[in-house]
This record gives sequence, structure tokens and C-alpha cells, in this order.
Amino acid sequence: MKKYNWGIIGLGEIAHQFASAFAFSPERNLLAAVASRTASKAKEFADEYGIPTSYGSYDELLADQTIDIIYIAVPNKQHHSHIIQALQAGKHVLCEKAITMNSAELMEAMALAEKKSLILAEAMTIFNMPLYKELKRIIDTGKLGKLKMIQAPFGSYKEPDPNNRFFNPDLAGGALLDIGTYAVSFARWFLTEQPTVKASVMEPFSTGVDEQSITILQNEKNEMAAVTLSFQSKAPKVGVVSFENAYITVNDYPRADRAELYFNDGTTETIISGSSEQALAYEIEAMTDFIEKKQPNRSLFLTRDVIDLLDQMQQEWAK
Amino acid sequence: MKKYNWGIIGLGEIAHQFASAFAFSPERNLLAAVASRTASKAKEFADEYGIPTSYGSYDELLADQTIDIIYIAVPNKQHHSHIIQALQAGKHVLCEKAITMNSAELMEAMALAEKKSLILAEAMTIFNMPLYKELKRIIDTGKLGKLKMIQAPFGSYKEPDPNNRFFNPDLAGGALLDIGTYAVSFARWFLTEQPTVKASVMEPFSTGVDEQSITILQNEKNEMAAVTLSFQSKAPKVGVVSFENAYITVNDYPRADRAELYFNDGTTETIISGSSEQALAYEIEAMTDFIEKKQPNRSLFLTRDVIDLLDQMQQEWAK
Repeated sequence: MKKYNWGIIGLGEIAHQFASAFAFSPERNLLAAVASRTASKAKEFADEYGIPTSYGSYDELLADQTIDIIYIAVPNKQHHSHIIQALQAGKHVLCEKAITMNSAELMEAMALAEKKSLILAEAMTIFNMPLYKELKRIIDTGKLGKLKMIQAPFGSYKEPDPNNRFFNPDLAGGALLDIGTYAVSFARWFLTEQPTVKASVMEPFSTGVDEQSITILQNEKNEMAAVTLSFQSKAPKVGVVSFENAYITVNDYPRADRAELYFNDGTTETIISGSSEQALAYEIEAMTDFIEKKQPNRSLFLTRDVIDLLDQMQQEWAK
Repeated sequence: MKKYNWGIIGLGEIAHQFASAFAFSPERNLLAAVASRTASKAKEFADEYGIPTSYGSYDELLADQTIDIIYIAVPNKQHHSHIIQALQAGKHVLCEKAITMNSAELMEAMALAEKKSLILAEAMTIFNMPLYKELKRIIDTGKLGKLKMIQAPFGSYKEPDPNNRFFNPDLAGGALLDIGTYAVSFARWFLTEQPTVKASVMEPFSTGVDEQSITILQNEKNEMAAVTLSFQSKAPKVGVVSFENAYITVNDYPRADRAELYFNDGTTETIISGSSEQALAYEIEAMTDFIEKKQPNRSLFLTRDVIDLLDQMQQEWAK
């Protein structure tokens, strides 16, 4: 069995979590190198996790022929250019959400990955947690009946500081590209067909970025979803998926390993699958699975649908 | 202290609950008479609750000079005509929700009530439960910060039978006038100004009535609310009210006596006020309070706002 060598570009908070996740997947994956624009920062990070190599530039990492997969964890706005560079260097790419700023960027990246026969994927927990695959399996049995309504709320309080990246338009701030990707990915996972944005109302922060919004999604099967986002107030992160015969609730849905089923007849069922602690390890394993199976990365098509919906929401706001 | 004599028009399920609620308010209120189109049905109902008088017609009840207040529990479509008749007969009126089919009907009824110096009110639990008054008191201290976002979901599974009143357009079926009044009333209670319907998407049942919908409300203070209704799937009836510093959750919100406050700093607080079991007794007490204080019924202005929003939603759907 081939062991895959990974390199990380961008060494912020999520990169630390990601580096720790390799402990769950030691047989097939090795975090072999990290890169930062600052050599000392890369060295420090490498030392902390026992990573063999560190680079003071992204180009050096991409030139390293021993690296198979690049994990990109730089700020959102820089995702696209780093994806393109990594693919051109012949690397498979796992990129943090939101994978790109818009559909056009994603299409270009997807086309290049296909041309190069490389795997491109978004590090979206919801598309990789075992719980969601198990829920889909249960839904596919038909016992829940038809899907009717989804509630995908995400409220996260950020200090209202215009210079903070969350509110800074120059750093692609706003709730949508930060927490909105989770809420829309949750909805998209369960919707049996891609929806369109029927309506979306956004309230801007003083800097102009989206502070909060409500969006209505609906597809041709008349499945509906409400996406409620807020950057200035909290709300329970409980996803609700309502079918004719039962509804599912998923607490803390981005990294959930547990869901509750409430049937109309009053019975309930608890579904436990996977482990929240290993959330990022599932992303690592999914990458190597995709590469070995040489199959198209199906979760990327969900990612594409999500980015397309984010585009539609922003277009709605620009009206 | 004057004791008020009540009469009930319409003797369905909710009238039974209402009759039972007089047990909580024996000093000031007496259920003195009931009326049905069928004399035997009225007699049976009266016997069951020890009510002194029963009438086989609504006119006889309205002609009874000993009756001060009429509680109207006939089907929605007939509310307006019965309200008008009762007011013209000089009775105060408490009418089941939705109080009227539209704003025009309500305006006419409100004008007549004012002209006759009679109290008109809607039997909306949310506007009368002590819990909601207590939550408003807490909000008014300012410690929760500004209101940002409200989630008002209501999912209720009804057997998909076109002849069932819930789906019958001739009986004013549809989710909006049944469960939607609760969800919109919940949102309106907390919104500090009347919102407008920014968007509403509805999926019809085969009979044409609204089976499910999602509505976005927003007011000039940029407070937002998502109202999600479904008649073909269940969902937890958890209202969520998100402020800058904390959010409130209210389980089973129509008759709730308990709410949880979750502050951003991690602390929580449980608010308990009133009793769910006495939900309809609060409506009875509120009526006599309004009459004795000879003050305008302020909750009727909230009712008017809600009916106005239901109008806007239906107009949106008709586009």
C-alpha cells in the first residue's frame, strides 16, 4: 500500500488542527512538509508536529517531488491561485472551505484537475463525516418518506471590529464565505437535487460585508431549505431535516458524529457514526481513497453546487 | 368585583379545552352559556362542564342579556361574521386564531369594537402566556443587547387528505392560517418594530392550499426572522431569538412556560413563568383585565400586525 506524502501551505489555526489529525491515519498518510512565507514560522510548526521538512516559500514545497498531496489553508481569497499552482506542479489538492471565491474560479480549477488527472477536493467536514453517509443510507431505505424541509442555521458571534478579517472586505470577510459554506453544504447534502436560491435577504456590516442573511432554497422536487446566518449573534447549530415520516436533528452539525431521528409515530432513534474528534482525519482518508480508486471525487460536485448557490446569494444581494 | 359571564360559539376541540380553563379563573369568570347549531350538541357540552345554559342557535346566545363576553371557536372562515354579530349585540369578543382571514376583515371588526367601546381580542397563547411578558421584561433591561435574528419554525404532519379541513380550500385550509399564525406571532412578539415580508416561497398541496413555506421578515431596525412552515412534515417547535449577547430558545413555543437563555460568555439561565397547563386561562384573564382597565387591547395591535403579514405572504404567493 502506497503511503502518501502531504504538504501544507498556510500555517494558521486550522493547519494546526489538520496536522494533529494525521495521528489518526498513520499507515497511509504522512505529513512530510509544511510551507510558510516565513521560514522560521514553518520550522517552528514542523518542529511542533515532528514534520521532517519545512520551507520558507510555497514554491519550494510545490517543487518537492516527494510530495503527493497539498493541503491549502491560506486565506479564502488566495485559495484559487494556490490550487492552480499546486495542480500545475502535479499535486493532488485538498483545499479549505470555501474552496474558491466563486464558481468561475472553481470551474477553472476543476477543469485543470481533470486535465491533469489529479484529485481536487474541499475540506468540508460535512461531506466526509461518517455520520452523514450513514444518514444518507437510512434515508435511501425510504422509511423516512419524502424530504420536505430543511433548516440550516448558523449563528456565530464575532467582535464587531472592521479590521478583523471576519468583517474586512479586502480579506473576503462576511458570514457567507465563513459559516455560510457549512449551512449550505448541510442543506445540499440532504437535498436530492440541486436547488436554486429563490430569495435571499442580507444585512450588511458597516464595512459592507454580509453580517447576516436568510436564504430560501428550493429544487424541482419542491424540497425547501431555510439558511439563516448571523455573524453578530449566536444560535444553536442544530440542523433539522424534515421528511414525511420523521425528522432528523443534528446538533453542532459541522463535525457531528450523532443525530436523532424523531418518527411521527412518537418513536425515536439515535444514530452514532464516526467521531467528532477525528473530523479532519476523515478528510485526509477521503483524499487517499479518491486517489487510489481513481474515481471522480463525487463530493466535489456537491462543493460545486454549494459554491454555485453562494454565487446566487451574492447576486441576489447585489440587486 | 364584577364577575363576567361568558358564552361560547362553536363547540369543537378547542372549545372543550377552553371550557376546562375556567376552572383556573373561578372568581371573576363564569362560563354561563354555550351555543351550537345543534341543540342536543350544545346541551351535551353544557352538561359535561356544568354550564347553566345551552342554546341551539348562535342568535339566542347573542340575545342573552346576561352574557358579557363571547368566545368564538367556529372555523376560521366564519370568524369575521360572528365577530361582527357579537359586537353588534354589545358583547366583548375573544376569537380563536387566526382572528380573521385578512386585514380588511380585521380592520372592520376593530373599527366596530372601538365604536362600541367593546374589547376585541385574538385567542393567541403567545400574546398571553406569562413567559413571554417575562422574556420581554428581561430583554428591556438591555442585557441581551440588540435583537438580530429570529427563527420561528412550525412543522405539523397532517394526513394528506384533500377532504380534511387542513387541506380543503373551501374551509380556509393551509398551513399559514393554522400553524403559521403561531410562528408569525412568535416572531412579532420579539421584533421591536413591525417587519415586512421580504420574500416568501410556498409549495402548494394538490388542492392548492399552502402545504409548506419559508418566509423572510425584516424591519427597519434590520431585525430579521425566518418563518418555516410545513403541513407534511414535523420539526421541533423551537423558537430561537438571537441577540448580540445571548440567544433565547423556547421549546414548544405556543404554550411555553419555560425558556433558556444562552449568553455568549457561556453562562446560561432558565426562565420559568406561568404554566403551560393554564395557557387558555391566561387568555380568559387577559380579557377581563382589558375590560376592567378600559384600556385599548394592546395585543390586538400585534394581532393586526400578524394578520397584515399573513396578507403579505399570500400576496407574495399569488404573484
